[in-house]
Amino acid sequence: MAPAPSTARVTAALARRAIDEKTKPPGSLGALEDWAVQLAEIQGTLTPRIGRARVLVFGADHGVAADGVSAYPPQVTGEMMRNFSRGGAAINVLARANGLEIEVIDVGVDADLATVTGITHAAVRRGSANLRHGPAMTDAECDAAIAVGRAAVRRAADDGVAAIGLGEMGIGNTTAAAAVLSALTGAPPAVTVGRGTGVDDARLAHKRVVVTEALARHATHTTPMAILAALGGLELAAIAGAALEAPRHGIAVVVDGFISTVGTLAAVRIDPSIRDHLFFAHRSAESGHGVALEALAARPMLDLGLRLGEGTGAALALPLLRAAAAVLAEMATFDGAGVSRDR
Amino acid sequence: MAPAPSTARVTAALARRAIDEKTKPPGSLGALEDWAVQLAEIQGTLTPRIGRARVLVFGADHGVAADGVSAYPPQVTGEMMRNFSRGGAAINVLARANGLEIEVIDVGVDADLATVTGITHAAVRRGSANLRHGPAMTDAECDAAIAVGRAAVRRAADDGVAAIGLGEMGIGNTTAAAAVLSALTGAPPAVTVGRGTGVDDARLAHKRVVVTEALARHATHTTPMAILAALGGLELAAIAGAALEAPRHGIAVVVDGFISTVGTLAAVRIDPSIRDHLFFAHRSAESGHGVALEALAARPMLDLGLRLGEGTGAALALPLLRAAAAVLAEMATFDGAGVSRDR
Repeated sequence: MAPAPSTARVTAALARRAIDEKTKPPGSLGALEDWAVQLAEIQGTLTPRIGRARVLVFGADHGVAADGVSAYPPQVTGEMMRNFSRGGAAINVLARANGLEIEVIDVGVDADLATVTGITHAAVRRGSANLRHGPAMTDAECDAAIAVGRAAVRRAADDGVAAIGLGEMGIGNTTAAAAVLSALTGAPPAVTVGRGTGVDDARLAHKRVVVTEALARHATHTTPMAILAALGGLELAAIAGAALEAPRHGIAVVVDGFISTVGTLAAVRIDPSIRDHLFFAHRSAESGHGVALEALAARPMLDLGLRLGEGTGAALALPLLRAAAAVLAEMATFDGAGVSRDR
Repeated sequence: MAPAPSTARVTAALARRAIDEKTKPPGSLGALEDWAVQLAEIQGTLTPRIGRARVLVFGADHGVAADGVSAYPPQVTGEMMRNFSRGGAAINVLARANGLEIEVIDVGVDADLATVTGITHAAVRRGSANLRHGPAMTDAECDAAIAVGRAAVRRAADDGVAAIGLGEMGIGNTTAAAAVLSALTGAPPAVTVGRGTGVDDARLAHKRVVVTEALARHATHTTPMAILAALGGLELAAIAGAALEAPRHGIAVVVDGFISTVGTLAAVRIDPSIRDHLFFAHRSAESGHGVALEALAARPMLDLGLRLGEGTGAALALPLLRAAAAVLAEMATFDGAGVSRDR
C-alpha cells in the first residue's frame, strides 16, 4: 500500500477512529475525546500537542464606569494592571500553577502605566467614551484595538504557542459586554445585564437602565463591527481581533468568561469560519454568559461558579486541553499494548 | 499584640477571611475558594500547597466477571496492569500531562504479574470469589486488602505527598460496586447498576439480576466491613483503606469515579470523621455514581462524561486543587497591592 500523502487532511472521522484504537472503552473519556478530535483538526495531525500555552489579558477602561455601574471605582483597572505586572493577581497565580505564560496588554487603560514593566503598552486611547451618551469608540479606534489583539496572537505564533486563553480586565466592562450581547442577539438587558463584580439590587437596576438607553441610542448600528465600536470597549475589540487571528496560525483559542465570550461572539459574527478553533473554558456565574454561550452553541469545559475574568477560567481549562491532546498523541493502542478488545 | 500561638487551629472562617483579602471580588473564584478553605483546614495553614500529588491505582479481579457482566474478558485486568507498567494507559498519559506521580498496586489480579516491573506487588489473592454464589472475600482477606490501601498511603506520606487520587482497574468491578452501593444505601439495582465499560441492553439486564441475587444472598450482612467483604472486591477494600488512612497524615484525597466513590463511601460509613479530607473529582457517566455522590453529599469538581476509571478523573481534577491552594498561598491582598476595595 502506498504511503498516505503527507498533505492528507486530518478529518474528525480519522481522529475519532484513532482514539477508538486507544486502550479504553470507546467514548469513555467523554468530552476529552471531543476536544482531542477538535485539536487534531486544528493542528492537522493525529498527534496534537499543547506545548506552550499563553493567556492574553487585555486591559481597558470604560467611560460608562463614571455612571456607577460597578462595585469598584474606575481606578481599579490601572491598579490591577500594576498587580498583574508584579505577579500578585489571580491570573498570575493560576498561570504559574498550571505552567502557562501570560501576556498583559494595555489596550486602553485610563492610567499612566508608562513606567510599569512586564506589560505590553499598546493603548489606543485612555479609556472608551461613555456609551450611554455616544459611541464608545470611533470606527478607527475599534479597528486599532482589533489590530492590537491580532498583533498579540502573531507574537504568540512567533513564539510557538499552541493555544491561547483570552482574558480581560476593565472596570465597567460587564456593562459594555451586556450592551454588545443585546445588540448582537436581541436578548433584552433583563437577561444580559448581571451583577458583574457584585453590585447590589439598586445598582443592578441602574445598570439595566444604562444599557437600555445605550441600545436605544445606538439602534441604527447593526453590523458586528459597528456594534463593537458603539457599545463595546477597547479590550472587547482586542479580544475579537485575537479570536479572528488565531485560526490563521493553527492556534487553539480558549475563551474565558462573559466578556471574552461576548468579544468572541462578535468575532464569529464577523467571520463564522473561526468557530471550530474555539473552546469555552467555563460557565460563568454572570447571568448573561448563558445567552452568549447559547448564541455560539458552546458547551463550556468547566462549571465552577467563577465570575472574576482576567482569563482565570481559561487558565484553569488549559490543562484539560493539554491532557486531551496527550490522550491522542501518547496513549497505547489495543494492538500495540496486547490488550483484548470488547466482545 | 502578642504573636498568635503556633498551635492555633486554622478554621474555615479564618481561611475564608484570608481569601476575602485577596485582590478579587469576594466569592468570584467560586468553587476554587471552597477548595482552598478545605485545604487550609486539612493542612492547618493559611498557605496550603499541593506540591507532590500521586494517583493510586488499585488493580484486582472479580469472580463475578465469569458471569459475563462486562463488555471485556477478565484477562483485560492483567493486560492493563502490563499497560500501566509500560506507561501507555490513559492514567499514565494524564498523570504525565499534569505533573502527577502514580503508583499501581496489584491487590488481587488473577494473572502472573511477578515479573512485571514498576508496579507494587501486594496481591491478597488472585481475584475475589463470585459474589453471586458466596462471599467475595473472607473477613481476613478484606482486612488484608484494606491494609494494602493504608500502606500505599503511608508510602505517599513518607514521600511528602500532599494529595492522593484514588483509582482502580478491575474487569467486573462496576458489578461489585453496584452491589456494595445498594447494600450500603438501600438504593435498588435498577439505579445502582449501569453499563460499566459499555454493555448492551441484554447484558445490563443480566447484570441487574446478578446484583439482585447477590443482595438477597448476603442480606444478613449489614455493617460496612461485612458488606465490603461479601459484595465488594479487593480494590474496593484497598480504596476504603486508603481513604481511611490519608487523614491521619494530613493528605487530601481526590476520589475518582463510580468504583472509587463507592469504596470511599464504605470508608466514610466506617469512620465519618474522614469526610472533610475528601474531594470528588467528577460526575461519572456511570448511572450509579449519582447515588453514591448523593450519599456522601458530594459536589463533583468536573462533569466531563468520563466513565473510564483508573483514576483518570482524579488526574484531571488534581490541577484544580493545586490551583486552589495557590490562590490562598500566593495571591496579593488589597492592602499589599494597593488596590482599591469595593464601595
